Amino acid sequence: MEKIYLASDYQEGAHPSIMKRLMETNMEHTPGYGTDDYSASAIEKIRRACDAPNAAVHFLVGGTQTNATVIDALLASYQGVIAAESGHISVHEAGAIEFGGHKVLTLPHHYGKIAARELDAYCDTFEHDGNRDHMVMPGMVYISHPTEYGTLYSLKELSAIRKICDAHHLKLYVDGARLAYALACPSNDVTLPDLARLTDAFYIGGTKCGCLFGEAVVLPNPELIPHFFTIIKQHGALLAKGRISGIQFDTLFTDDLYSKIGEPAIKAADKLREILTSHGFRLAFDSPTNQVFVIAEDSILPKLDTHVAYSFWEKYDDSHTIIRFASSWATTMDDVNAFAAILDA
Amino acid sequence: MEKIYLASDYQEGAHPSIMKRLMETNMEHTPGYGTDDYSASAIEKIRRACDAPNAAVHFLVGGTQTNATVIDALLASYQGVIAAESGHISVHEAGAIEFGGHKVLTLPHHYGKIAARELDAYCDTFEHDGNRDHMVMPGMVYISHPTEYGTLYSLKELSAIRKICDAHHLKLYVDGARLAYALACPSNDVTLPDLARLTDAFYIGGTKCGCLFGEAVVLPNPELIPHFFTIIKQHGALLAKGRISGIQFDTLFTDDLYSKIGEPAIKAADKLREILTSHGFRLAFDSPTNQVFVIAEDSILPKLDTHVAYSFWEKYDDSHTIIRFASSWATTMDDVNAFAAILDA
Amino acid sequence: MEKIYLASDYQEGAHPSIMKRLMETNMEHTPGYGTDDYSASAIEKIRRACDAPNAAVHFLVGGTQTNATVIDALLASYQGVIAAESGHISVHEAGAIEFGGHKVLTLPHHYGKIAARELDAYCDTFEHDGNRDHMVMPGMVYISHPTEYGTLYSLKELSAIRKICDAHHLKLYVDGARLAYALACPSNDVTLPDLARLTDAFYIGGTKCGCLFGEAVVLPNPELIPHFFTIIKQHGALLAKGRISGIQFDTLFTDDLYSKIGEPAIKAADKLREILTSHGFRLAFDSPTNQVFVIAEDSILPKLDTHVAYSFWEKYDDSHTIIRFASSWATTMDDVNAFAAILDA
Amino acid sequence: MEKIYLASDYQEGAHPSIMKRLMETNMEHTPGYGTDDYSASAIEKIRRACDAPNAAVHFLVGGTQTNATVIDALLASYQGVIAAESGHISVHEAGAIEFGGHKVLTLPHHYGKIAARELDAYCDTFEHDGNRDHMVMPGMVYISHPTEYGTLYSLKELSAIRKICDAHHLKLYVDGARLAYALACPSNDVTLPDLARLTDAFYIGGTKCGCLFGEAVVLPNPELIPHFFTIIKQHGALLAKGRISGIQFDTLFTDDLYSKIGEPAIKAADKLREILTSHGFRLAFDSPTNQVFVIAEDSILPKLDTHVAYSFWEKYDDSHTIIRFASSWATTMDDVNAFAAILDA
Repeated sequence: MEKIYLASDYQEGAHPSIMKRLMETNMEHTPGYGTDDYSASAIEKIRRACDAPNAAVHFLVGGTQTNATVIDALLASYQGVIAAESGHISVHEAGAIEFGGHKVLTLPHHYGKIAARELDAYCDTFEHDGNRDHMVMPGMVYISHPTEYGTLYSLKELSAIRKICDAHHLKLYVDGARLAYALACPSNDVTLPDLARLTDAFYIGGTKCGCLFGEAVVLPNPELIPHFFTIIKQHGALLAKGRISGIQFDTLFTDDLYSKIGEPAIKAADKLREILTSHGFRLAFDSPTNQVFVIAEDSILPKLDTHVAYSFWEKYDDSHTIIRFASSWATTMDDVNAFAAILDA
Repeated sequence: MEKIYLASDYQEGAHPSIMKRLMETNMEHTPGYGTDDYSASAIEKIRRACDAPNAAVHFLVGGTQTNATVIDALLASYQGVIAAESGHISVHEAGAIEFGGHKVLTLPHHYGKIAARELDAYCDTFEHDGNRDHMVMPGMVYISHPTEYGTLYSLKELSAIRKICDAHHLKLYVDGARLAYALACPSNDVTLPDLARLTDAFYIGGTKCGCLFGEAVVLPNPELIPHFFTIIKQHGALLAKGRISGIQFDTLFTDDLYSKIGEPAIKAADKLREILTSHGFRLAFDSPTNQVFVIAEDSILPKLDTHVAYSFWEKYDDSHTIIRFASSWATTMDDVNAFAAILDA
Repeated sequence: MEKIYLASDYQEGAHPSIMKRLMETNMEHTPGYGTDDYSASAIEKIRRACDAPNAAVHFLVGGTQTNATVIDALLASYQGVIAAESGHISVHEAGAIEFGGHKVLTLPHHYGKIAARELDAYCDTFEHDGNRDHMVMPGMVYISHPTEYGTLYSLKELSAIRKICDAHHLKLYVDGARLAYALACPSNDVTLPDLARLTDAFYIGGTKCGCLFGEAVVLPNPELIPHFFTIIKQHGALLAKGRISGIQFDTLFTDDLYSKIGEPAIKAADKLREILTSHGFRLAFDSPTNQVFVIAEDSILPKLDTHVAYSFWEKYDDSHTIIRFASSWATTMDDVNAFAAILDA
Repeated sequence: MEKIYLASDYQEGAHPSIMKRLMETNMEHTPGYGTDDYSASAIEKIRRACDAPNAAVHFLVGGTQTNATVIDALLASYQGVIAAESGHISVHEAGAIEFGGHKVLTLPHHYGKIAARELDAYCDTFEHDGNRDHMVMPGMVYISHPTEYGTLYSLKELSAIRKICDAHHLKLYVDGARLAYALACPSNDVTLPDLARLTDAFYIGGTKCGCLFGEAVVLPNPELIPHFFTIIKQHGALLAKGRISGIQFDTLFTDDLYSKIGEPAIKAADKLREILTSHGFRLAFDSPTNQVFVIAEDSILPKLDTHVAYSFWEKYDDSHTIIRFASSWATTMDDVNAFAAILDA
């Protein structure tokens, strides 16, 4: 039995159509730093897909880098960013936000999501605190969609958060590292135009959604961040051969690929949930996208390890662990069936 | 007549052998963040090429990012980095070093190079200054090889700088963005093992030397920077799909490709110098590698622009400009001949 | 009835003996930046009081500045500082720690204190996390003594925290902004020599304990922070006329003044607690030092405001508020009696 | 013969009228952080003296701190500050500006001053550089008045610099650490209202001009820096007992003291120049304020050391050194006569 790979959504190279374009264009000559025609074309297609004809679009390399650069650009020096305590910037970016001088102000999370009501209360408390001038002022809100728990904000929830942001003069930024898996999910009702309409900035994830690497930052209001090019450079986030990003995103936004690329992952994840529960595993919580979290008995893990690459999430109790299976654009039904066979055995 | 592209050494994609490997391995599954076997293999090959069996090797994405991350990791908060006033970190990294909290302390440059004697004098002056505790302490030296002027340090010069660094307790770091063009240059006598022996850290440039992107940092003493992985992550410089870097460098260090990949560039540049001088252009200064600097009459530039992509260097006088032609691993003799034909016409 | 001032412990100038010394020495000439004889004498006296003959002692200006400078000096760039979520650095320093690039990692607080057991668990969890290299590594522990809630660590508790720090390779730093009020408190059993023995760094508060301004940082191991003078300068924390700090601390450590200066405050606070409870106020929690926290009905606050300067702590419920009265070295029994008269009226 | 102290202008305590006020007010109760009436009164008096009725005025503790805080507040993250290469922020602030993330962009100095023409050329070059987006954008100009060389800008020179700043969208900031010595100097024609009219920010030096410590930042346009209070706190520059600054500056701006406090220093310096030249010393350069620079033979220095505290400036040649004598508000004609007697002997 071959090993099944469900450890993460960045285990493979790039979508074959991207590799094909990179090969075809490989020996062409283009100017650097994103001033090439492929990047221009990708930007235009992203604007159309977002129904945001004036949006500024910038290509960066990775998620932590993108978060650190955008957040640093959006905040004044004395401001912090509000995030779920489970947010990627809160826990898994090695202090990149603080390296830029900003505090991450945390709210409780509800399977990865923040609640508009709790955001409102947090801001109210801050605004009425007699010591507020001695405290870090909230300047923006960071959410991820899908979240780190694979959950989704509904359009209603996102709109409510936007409303609270308006009330408290906060910018809203969405980390879309896994955005393709939201767009391909039947229960998602947040579209790219919704994101462009409701946020100040968001990024369209490439690394986990079919690219070799790359994230596309969308700023619906192109004046929002003056000199963002230089800020990107200063953060070490500017690619010399910018066209490599441009070609990848141009491909993702040709023939609507980005909205479909996550479908195999969603189908695989749905099937994984079915297989796992039918084999007696309990889902740790409900998540509709490409990540599946189950409560597993510790005693079965060593055997599972030899057949499946998955990832540790957290201890559940003394004898159980929550583990995560992640499917991706590259996961096939053969993989899923092989996984079922392993569980049967 | 087709346009000739000599504007920079990052105008094309990757060396065909790299693209081939990326294609072949594209659908394989590997763990992330550089823990894959391709990265391990690349590291091992680089260690061998550097004759540094214990060296730590890390893959980052771009040059500015690499400089900022390594320099920040090597310096104490109160220390600065000494560089030529023409050094890339001094002028063309948008303040990335200062973003990390460090001052760039500049020395005069001699066509891009610093002089050991002037470095020594600078340190002496600092050490005898009664106010030295109120000043930025030099903590390391940054040089580039080849330099931004396409010039090369001789082994003797590099050894002299190392000696001065030892005398003043400075670390020595070499930016090898264009290192392949040094290694392929007949007048270069600094080898990879020399760099590993004489520096505390250096990087082997990939972006300008045949990769889609990527730079390999070599730390001959693997204990030099504790927790460098986390530092890389904190700087937003960690690639999720680390194998993409691993595969590229594994290819560059297979069959000695890296030491040969610059040869076409050097041959092209030598020929360009010959063609240019025979057409009445004056070389602005002598540079033996892949960059050619000539003093051009301003009046001819508009016509030249339509046929050749080159880059502006600086104004020479009221009616002349220094312009730069850069060849690369991808430049062919056909390109060079076409360029000669343009000058003839 | 004159207004009674119990809003904070920094409402007056300096202890009269300090003012006297400043006047007497005012026209003397001394060298700058702490190289004067008064500073040397103060350092020597502090070393003796701490039973730490080799300690390095540095004078800084204020508490936030001292915390930011010491924490930045003690941490590697990728490390964070563990603190109670109620700690001054967590909430009331306007992001000064993050400005230096470091995350504040919070533990639950127990009336301002952290628990050794919870510290241990936090570190254990971090050390066993598979993603630890993507997270902020704890590098030190920050506690305050007395805490922001006026509570005290027992020697046993402090020793337990030290032991956990040792087990996890963490440095331990104590913010002694109000240290004199601990030393003068009968229930305190942590001495200056204990602090010097059990911590890596602590500061002896001057601003709230009788000085015009100033905090004395004690580093029991003088090699702990190389070039701390320059780090202080870089943080804008170096006083040109260093002797002004030196004279103040020399006075505080002459004839044991620092260990006695808090006594009037403790006596006043004890009496305030008695008066308040006998007038039907409920203490919000038990705190033995110079801060008294009571739950007050909102309806009485407007009247109270006209007679007493106190401070708002936090809302207790819809109709009650926790308010704080703070006594200081300058509070007299006359003040306390006048306060009783106000409550009587 | 008693030793004569001419090493710096921060060798004594505070002006007697300041000490008197501090003594008189010592036991009063005031709220913290500059919200007291003394600070309010000082602010009002400074506004009047500057003919800037709406100016924001903030009190900070020291010069390096003030420069770092103001510059950080005025610049965008990707901008740098232009200064003379001899400027205090360029050489003697231990990298405090870089600690805040900003590059100091240096211009040649002419005995401490920058030339409007060279500033213009620098900006022109930047603005026409094809790589400007990869470079640090100049965002403001820093000058000191008097300069570190004791020289003065004329009103005409200052106006010319302002004009260039306008042309290139640069803010203008003046470091007035020694401003009182300009105001008291007959050859100075730059008044406080001129500074308020021509700059975006400047600070009125207290530490070197009669205070124990303290600098008053004046922002003629009070909207220039939103939330500057919090920025000051974040930089560790906020004094808890703010009134100590308030009382000092209120005294300095009562009965026009600040404009007269430097007179004894100027008279003493003029006399020192006369004495020194009549004893065969050569002035290193012309400086009209309280600093006197002479070229001294190295052989006489050991004897001079035993009688006079002065400071080393720089080596002049193999057998000569430039040394500096600095007078202050506290220097008396007795001191000067004693100095003459020493030279006679």
